[in-house]
Amino acid sequence: MSPQSPSSAPAVLISEVGPRDGLQSVKATMPTADKRRWIDALVAAGLREIEVCSFVPAALLPQMADAAEVVRHALTHPGITVMALVPNLRGAQAALAAGVHKITLPVSASLAHSRANVRKTPDEMVEEVRAIAGLRDALAPHVKVEAGISTAFGCTLQGAVDEGEVLRIAAACAAAGADDVGLSDTTGMAHPAQVRRLFRRLAAEIGDKAGAAHLHNTRGLGLANCLAAWDVGVRTFDSSLGGLGGCPYAPGASGNVVTEDLVFMFEAMGVHTGVDLDRLFAARQPLQAGLPGEPLYGMTPEAGLPKGWSPTPLP
Amino acid sequence: MSPQSPSSAPAVLISEVGPRDGLQSVKATMPTADKRRWIDALVAAGLREIEVCSFVPAALLPQMADAAEVVRHALTHPGITVMALVPNLRGAQAALAAGVHKITLPVSASLAHSRANVRKTPDEMVEEVRAIAGLRDALAPHVKVEAGISTAFGCTLQGAVDEGEVLRIAAACAAAGADDVGLSDTTGMAHPAQVRRLFRRLAAEIGDKAGAAHLHNTRGLGLANCLAAWDVGVRTFDSSLGGLGGCPYAPGASGNVVTEDLVFMFEAMGVHTGVDLDRLFAARQPLQAGLPGEPLYGMTPEAGLPKGWSPTPLP
Repeated sequence: MSPQSPSSAPAVLISEVGPRDGLQSVKATMPTADKRRWIDALVAAGLREIEVCSFVPAALLPQMADAAEVVRHALTHPGITVMALVPNLRGAQAALAAGVHKITLPVSASLAHSRANVRKTPDEMVEEVRAIAGLRDALAPHVKVEAGISTAFGCTLQGAVDEGEVLRIAAACAAAGADDVGLSDTTGMAHPAQVRRLFRRLAAEIGDKAGAAHLHNTRGLGLANCLAAWDVGVRTFDSSLGGLGGCPYAPGASGNVVTEDLVFMFEAMGVHTGVDLDRLFAARQPLQAGLPGEPLYGMTPEAGLPKGWSPTPLP
Repeated sequence: MSPQSPSSAPAVLISEVGPRDGLQSVKATMPTADKRRWIDALVAAGLREIEVCSFVPAALLPQMADAAEVVRHALTHPGITVMALVPNLRGAQAALAAGVHKITLPVSASLAHSRANVRKTPDEMVEEVRAIAGLRDALAPHVKVEAGISTAFGCTLQGAVDEGEVLRIAAACAAAGADDVGLSDTTGMAHPAQVRRLFRRLAAEIGDKAGAAHLHNTRGLGLANCLAAWDVGVRTFDSSLGGLGGCPYAPGASGNVVTEDLVFMFEAMGVHTGVDLDRLFAARQPLQAGLPGEPLYGMTPEAGLPKGWSPTPLP
């Protein structure tokens, strides 16, 4: 298999969310030293944007009690974008104080999910985006603010989510000062036709503020949905090493798209990711060491690279 | 999630290969009575083409010793296409004697794989297609003959497989009398850009004799590759219930594309398959009963159908 039509690049940005999204879904708390080693290995593999933690009350989420320390460590790596999730203005204050490069805020398009998750309506969350963007303007204008529209493709609480409402909330976030607005398949309900339609509409609505695809693999459609998003121009993809996070069902099920398989797909297609697959596979070791017994997913690491494999050449 | 743009249909034909391809890869021999129940359940779920067995010497493959009996049973179901794999003319004689509706013959595009697998060159296999088509013309002109070009996307023995050679062998099979010529990712090396390119070239080369996509999930790209094939006009897809068959690696790996996930993807997209997902999930029971302890894959059966799910309406 030889790569096809290499483009100038990296042609896609793989945004690794394991240290935040992945860890937030597991029971065991990973020691800070292990988080550091894992992040080092992710950087060594060539990942250039890493969501390293969330800034939430430690009482609610002990896993993230060391958020500021993890950010400090990640910042020692030059050239990467250190990203943190925040649920509100208070979290954003802490994230800015820690020195992150980018903040992401989940804004649910489903009223039921939004109320259950953050006890606010979607429109109240848009006001949170506005407050955070204002704080950023005042304190750290170089920091990027992303809004991720969760339950954009369906909601386990309310079922279908109106696409017009998704786009309305996305546009409101952009108008409130978000630099990027992505769409998240929080519940693993997206399908390729929907992914193409919704990302096309997003770009039509907010232009180059249209952001990342955060897709799940709950029903096995993760990579097909990523391909669908790529087809309509999405160039930033969230995924997690070993598929950590989301809702693990029995064999092979995982919440998040598996970074290893996603990178393999793009590199095989000749779409340069900047990520070295062998080093990426090696980054599973510190992850596993920090979470003994936690199942890791990913079929490419298990199967190995194909005979005759060569990565997409650097542009 | 509501289905999108239903088409007149079934818009795709899901060709279930589990009873042949799946069983050929497992160690335990499934009793004939269990095979019958499994096939009954597949038919009840709405599958309309089933590869029920292969006609090979029983000494080589005890699993298929009851091939004629299995065909006889499958033929009791009106309206389905009963298909069998044959490796050569002798197998085709047995298949025709048993009364199959369709014969499929694997023709490898890789010289190394072809020699290792059937001790013949690809061109010698084309002659086998010609002989089988001639036999069919003489004995049972209503029977269809399919050639499946194996290792079309790469070979574990020789690495890359020249695409020109794939198309030359495919065209030769069509000229030799095959009704359909499909492409098989025998080794799980295909990627979406390659799938699109090769199926486009196949259609350009042999027109409406361009046949099924037989894709594997070895590195997690199975559904993405099916989507890619669908995008360029492929309308017949091989898959196996529970992902049975192929080369199972650790968690979630399976050789064949999982029928349950494939049907879910198409139905979610509004592409009518004619298959009822709940009945399809139920068909796992007789499969599991006939192969106790054998791991079954498939993420949609584990996750369940999404809230608010409704299948693509019948046209």
